[in-house]
Amino acid sequence: MKTSLGPKLLLYPTPVLVVGTYDADGKPNVMTASWGGICCSQPPCVNVSLRKATYSYHNLMARKAFTLSIPSVNFVRQADYFGLASGRDTDKFAASGLTAQRSDLVDAPYVAEFPLILECRLLQAIELGLHTMFVGEVADVKANPAILTPQGDVDMRKLQPLLFATGTKEYYGAGDFIAKAFTAGRESD
Amino acid sequence: MKTSLGPKLLLYPTPVLVVGTYDADGKPNVMTASWGGICCSQPPCVNVSLRKATYSYHNLMARKAFTLSIPSVNFVRQADYFGLASGRDTDKFAASGLTAQRSDLVDAPYVAEFPLILECRLLQAIELGLHTMFVGEVADVKANPAILTPQGDVDMRKLQPLLFATGTKEYYGAGDFIAKAFTAGRESD
Repeated sequence: MKTSLGPKLLLYPTPVLVVGTYDADGKPNVMTASWGGICCSQPPCVNVSLRKATYSYHNLMARKAFTLSIPSVNFVRQADYFGLASGRDTDKFAASGLTAQRSDLVDAPYVAEFPLILECRLLQAIELGLHTMFVGEVADVKANPAILTPQGDVDMRKLQPLLFATGTKEYYGAGDFIAKAFTAGRESD
Repeated sequence: MKTSLGPKLLLYPTPVLVVGTYDADGKPNVMTASWGGICCSQPPCVNVSLRKATYSYHNLMARKAFTLSIPSVNFVRQADYFGLASGRDTDKFAASGLTAQRSDLVDAPYVAEFPLILECRLLQAIELGLHTMFVGEVADVKANPAILTPQGDVDMRKLQPLLFATGTKEYYGAGDFIAKAFTAGRESD
């Protein structure tokens, strides 16, 4: 028998995505968002939702570009800080000591120290209510060589991404390898 | 110095969501999707992307409702199977031995044995390319009491959700607690 929890946002896991944008003066900004993910394979698209009240919302609407920098667990303090402060009155890069790197493909900066970066061109801004969903086409992914497998794939164990637990508002790390996808289920055929 | 990997879908982690729908004859179907997440706080909305070629796509378009059943790691074999077979020629519930439970709020079934369920009414279907993004308003969340904290929140450690690693096509579990959100970053203020 299941317990009804009401119409809450309890979906697990959600990612920890640091959205990079430039403001009208060219000042780089970052904010952390967990309402996002992958949304289309062709063209390759990701989505991230921001509230209109955020500084990043306006930057993104004006510049039509953003990056997603994915922190590893050792950057949890900086990633959390990027979700607490506002770029309106703070230079979050300066405050955190991290480096704003200009993307060579899209009009947005990313966090140079973070291990995995997606550079995105805005395709759609979809009004949903409190949040606006931004859909971006991935122009390129850039990775620290240290997080790659010998075959050049991203290795989850080396990336060590953060997970956000929405109900309890906690960060977790990724855990053990469980199974190969598109393989484990063949035993049921 | 970062390595360019090209315009690939490398965002970590993505969730493992089992989408439940009814077909025109009322047969329950499930398919596994990892392109999805939370997208709006008010109204509370989630999104999941499906290809037009899937049986679930047509079910969802006709019924305007779906559920998301979130498997724990011990259901990895069934969750993977739900992504391999098609409801067009298979009764995946019968084949897996799992139970289709009719939602009492929306016109869709869920997997009774899975620990966490989101019941959703379709709000928007957004064409992106190969995938169509379905945005649903959460009508209710239902949870097994065993995954809740004493305060009634979902406990990530008890839920034990699956993570999908897109590059290497692997499932992982959730790992260690890292930090409290909206707290860890205050030290940088």
